[in-house]
Amino acid sequence: MPTARYLVEGMTCAHCVAAVTEELTALDGVQDVGVDLDAGGITSVTVTSIRPLAPDDVVAALAEAGDYHLAGAATD
Amino acid sequence: MPTARYLVEGMTCAHCVAAVTEELTALDGVQDVGVDLDAGGITSVTVTSIRPLAPDDVVAALAEAGDYHLAGAATD
Repeated sequence: MPTARYLVEGMTCAHCVAAVTEELTALDGVQDVGVDLDAGGITSVTVTSIRPLAPDDVVAALAEAGDYHLAGAATD
Repeated sequence: MPTARYLVEGMTCAHCVAAVTEELTALDGVQDVGVDLDAGGITSVTVTSIRPLAPDDVVAALAEAGDYHLAGAATD
C-alpha cells in the first residue's frame, strides 16, 4: 500500500497533531496517518493510503486543519 | 464585574486559544474570555466573570484544555 511522507511547517502542539490527523484521515483512501511532531520545526507526517494522494488534496487538508504548509514530500 | 488576567505558559497556536477559551468560558459565572497569544511565551488571558474565580478552577480548566500552566495572575 502506498506510503508517503510529508514535511509540514507550522505544527506546534497536540491540537495541531489532532487536527492534521483528522483532516488527512478524512481523505478518500487513507488507511493510516502518523505524525512525528517537531514543534516549531518541520514535522514529519506519514500517510498510508490505498492509492497515491493528489498533492493538492494534501495541501487542502493541511489548510483546513490550520495554518500549516507543505514543505516537502517523499514517496516510499 | 470582576476581571482577572492570567499569565499562561505553553500556548502555541490557534487551537490552543480555542481550547483554553472553551474551557474557561465553561466555568460558572464567566461572561467573557480574551486571549492575547504569545506563541512559545507567556500568553495573557483575560476573564470577566460575575464573581471572582477560584484559582484551582482556573488551573483545572487550563489542564483540561491541554498542557498549559498558570504562570501568574492579576485582578483588576
